[in-house]
Amino acid sequence: MDIKTYLKEKRELIDDFLEKYFDSPLKPDVLKNSIVYSLSAGGKRIRPVLCLAAYEACGGKSDEIVPYAAALELIHTYSLIHDDLPAMDDDDLRRGKPTNHKVFGEGMAILAGDALLTEAFYLLSREDSHGENPARIPHSAVLKAVYEVAGGSGRYGMVGGQAQDLLSEDEEPEAETLSFIHRCKTAALITASVRMGGILACCNEDALSGLTRYGENIGLAFQIIDDILDVEGDTGTLGKTVGSDEKKKKMTYPKLYGIERSRDKARELINGALEALRIFGEGAEPLRAIARYLLERKN
Amino acid sequence: MDIKTYLKEKRELIDDFLEKYFDSPLKPDVLKNSIVYSLSAGGKRIRPVLCLAAYEACGGKSDEIVPYAAALELIHTYSLIHDDLPAMDDDDLRRGKPTNHKVFGEGMAILAGDALLTEAFYLLSREDSHGENPARIPHSAVLKAVYEVAGGSGRYGMVGGQAQDLLSEDEEPEAETLSFIHRCKTAALITASVRMGGILACCNEDALSGLTRYGENIGLAFQIIDDILDVEGDTGTLGKTVGSDEKKKKMTYPKLYGIERSRDKARELINGALEALRIFGEGAEPLRAIARYLLERKN
Repeated sequence: MDIKTYLKEKRELIDDFLEKYFDSPLKPDVLKNSIVYSLSAGGKRIRPVLCLAAYEACGGKSDEIVPYAAALELIHTYSLIHDDLPAMDDDDLRRGKPTNHKVFGEGMAILAGDALLTEAFYLLSREDSHGENPARIPHSAVLKAVYEVAGGSGRYGMVGGQAQDLLSEDEEPEAETLSFIHRCKTAALITASVRMGGILACCNEDALSGLTRYGENIGLAFQIIDDILDVEGDTGTLGKTVGSDEKKKKMTYPKLYGIERSRDKARELINGALEALRIFGEGAEPLRAIARYLLERKN
Repeated sequence: MDIKTYLKEKRELIDDFLEKYFDSPLKPDVLKNSIVYSLSAGGKRIRPVLCLAAYEACGGKSDEIVPYAAALELIHTYSLIHDDLPAMDDDDLRRGKPTNHKVFGEGMAILAGDALLTEAFYLLSREDSHGENPARIPHSAVLKAVYEVAGGSGRYGMVGGQAQDLLSEDEEPEAETLSFIHRCKTAALITASVRMGGILACCNEDALSGLTRYGENIGLAFQIIDDILDVEGDTGTLGKTVGSDEKKKKMTYPKLYGIERSRDKARELINGALEALRIFGEGAEPLRAIARYLLERKN
């Protein structure tokens, strides 16, 4: 299959939905502008696409769950806005553009993040998200999806990882802490995204456990590759400053294991992800192709 | 009825639940300490109590929905932590103690707020919250509660109001903007709290519309009284610095209308709230007593 076309098509589904969804007026204007600025900054929409691909792997049609998948991008975008703040990673550049607080100020950036996080749950729980879709996902499955997303992004997931990351700057890299940070900060929400696809398709326990292992593996690989790109990438292609982890004394895989062993580790994880999909048939081809693609990505 | 005893009993229900809920270990410790610090700072738990009282007014028993009601306090606490940040209201004192960022630093305070907001939806959607309660609230009602809370606290509710508040500092007070700020910043989540009680009790449309009007009225009255206390209150009783609105050039009711007219307005709203409960019987006595109590409060 042509993974690039697949990724583009699914990304456009999400982009179109988000554009329409945030088209209505909002008071104050500045809050809307701040939200839309970060949301339309050209993200790859990898979390929503993973959710759609997992839903397809379980026999669903991805256009049935676009609003639910899009909610994942709201969470991801909020996390970028807050992570970039001066009190956190203090970044000036994101996806090739000035970071949110550089344009709208710190207060508005904090609020835009808060609004996006809250909106994710508004979108997941609204009757329209449910009513519009021909699949008629049961309320119990939607509620499980809310739980999944909140779990992956909260204190035992993304926020916990970010807190540990903040505390570990300037510290000597150490395997257990590094693994904790990456698993929580990045892999937890990616795993939740994949699982959400299965949950919305009301898949069985075996399928969900396969999707879980797939998510955990690609989630960690994704962050390791991010770390490698921060050392070896190109600022123009990446849209953020190369070498910023080093400058900020971040705990990373290349710093602890070197580039080659980090790359080996990522490859191993991707193989683990493919292995986890063995119980799935043809329908999981997009998930498999995404795993392979992640290993080769340049941004 | 003895409203002070009622408030104390219900507050203890919420306090006990929250204490147990956050008792389990969390990595990193600092994140947990930061969360628990603000959550146990002696809040009145007025939003959860309103939810419980509304549930009772619709024939439910309040101990059936304690986890759902407690989720409202997580949202309220997150909003206080973020509002106090230097980039927002820049407050050093809250409920008589140093604000969260003064103790844990800005980065950790932002993350504690993010964690609390996310946890509210985790708590609302978890099977235990549902399974433990003998009322067996239907999934559809829980999903509506999620939607209600997200709506009241998001871009069309609390966050929107806070954004306008931030933009309106230093500006001349103006009736329409002031009303917008207060309705969104404070009344929206209070209204959602009251409505949530009705929704979880699966009340009918008439009851829900009565609860809605009650919530809107007491919500706005609550904020007006807050404004008055900021002028006339006692720093010791209030637990925050009196006169801080004036110092920060906040748009407030006393500034626009003077103290006496603001007090009249609050009284009028409380009467409107009582009027909105006319269709309810005995079961709504606690809601009525809370409305009257709010008018007399000193902190």
